[in-house]
Amino acid sequence: MGELLIGADHGGFTLKKALVEHLRRKGIAVRDFGCHSEESCDYPDTAFKVAAEVAKGHRGVLICGTGIGMSIAANKVRGVRAALCHDERTARLSREHNDANLLALGGRTTDVELAKRILDVWLSTSFAGERHGMRVGKITSYEAAQ
Amino acid sequence: MGELLIGADHGGFTLKKALVEHLRRKGIAVRDFGCHSEESCDYPDTAFKVAAEVAKGHRGVLICGTGIGMSIAANKVRGVRAALCHDERTARLSREHNDANLLALGGRTTDVELAKRILDVWLSTSFAGERHGMRVGKITSYEAAQ
Repeated sequence: MGELLIGADHGGFTLKKALVEHLRRKGIAVRDFGCHSEESCDYPDTAFKVAAEVAKGHRGVLICGTGIGMSIAANKVRGVRAALCHDERTARLSREHNDANLLALGGRTTDVELAKRILDVWLSTSFAGERHGMRVGKITSYEAAQ
Repeated sequence: MGELLIGADHGGFTLKKALVEHLRRKGIAVRDFGCHSEESCDYPDTAFKVAAEVAKGHRGVLICGTGIGMSIAANKVRGVRAALCHDERTARLSREHNDANLLALGGRTTDVELAKRILDVWLSTSFAGERHGMRVGKITSYEAAQ
């Protein structure tokens, strides 16, 4: 899979730290886009940086307090399909049905251990293609027409 | 608030029906963009139609199986901030912090009674502005630069 990209704002900083450790323990290379403290920062800044790299063919994780701000901002980037997941089932479905290349998580809404399981499922699930591919294609076509 | 727009795919059809009844019982005008059965259809078609209207100044609700496909597609539309909410707290925060003008819900992941409470909180909560306004402004600036 290559390097996994990760970024957060202050509301996601603690969860990001835990997930970076979790990933490195599993031998997965991680590129950390910050933030590097709980000092207040603006989620769109990190979202656009990580999403621009994801659009080039990487996969990424973005964390803010609820994951909502990150998912809104990241989905503005052409080629990015950011899925806000709050359990393992939605993580699996976001890969199978939506071919999500970016996982959004809520640092203040999702427990650290659950977030690790969500991330593991998300990383190990493949896109199902077929009718889902046709639907994802409609999103790509919309983006191309803008 | 004026008319509320609502749309779903086959995975969100049943929940949409329940929410339309709930809203009309509360005296809220609803414009229903379909689908009108459980027959398989493509979520991006409905997402782009509803989102285009939301971008003109309305508020809307989009429902697919998980809400993920709808939130990805709707956020592609300039001026739309689609929040996937799975409880009342994230519904409140999506209005206070993200000024979400579109609520995405999972018809197969969120219980009908919980979805009604999520929708009620989402409709009755105001944007908090201030630092959150500056952050939303960064999303709007990104969109304008595309």
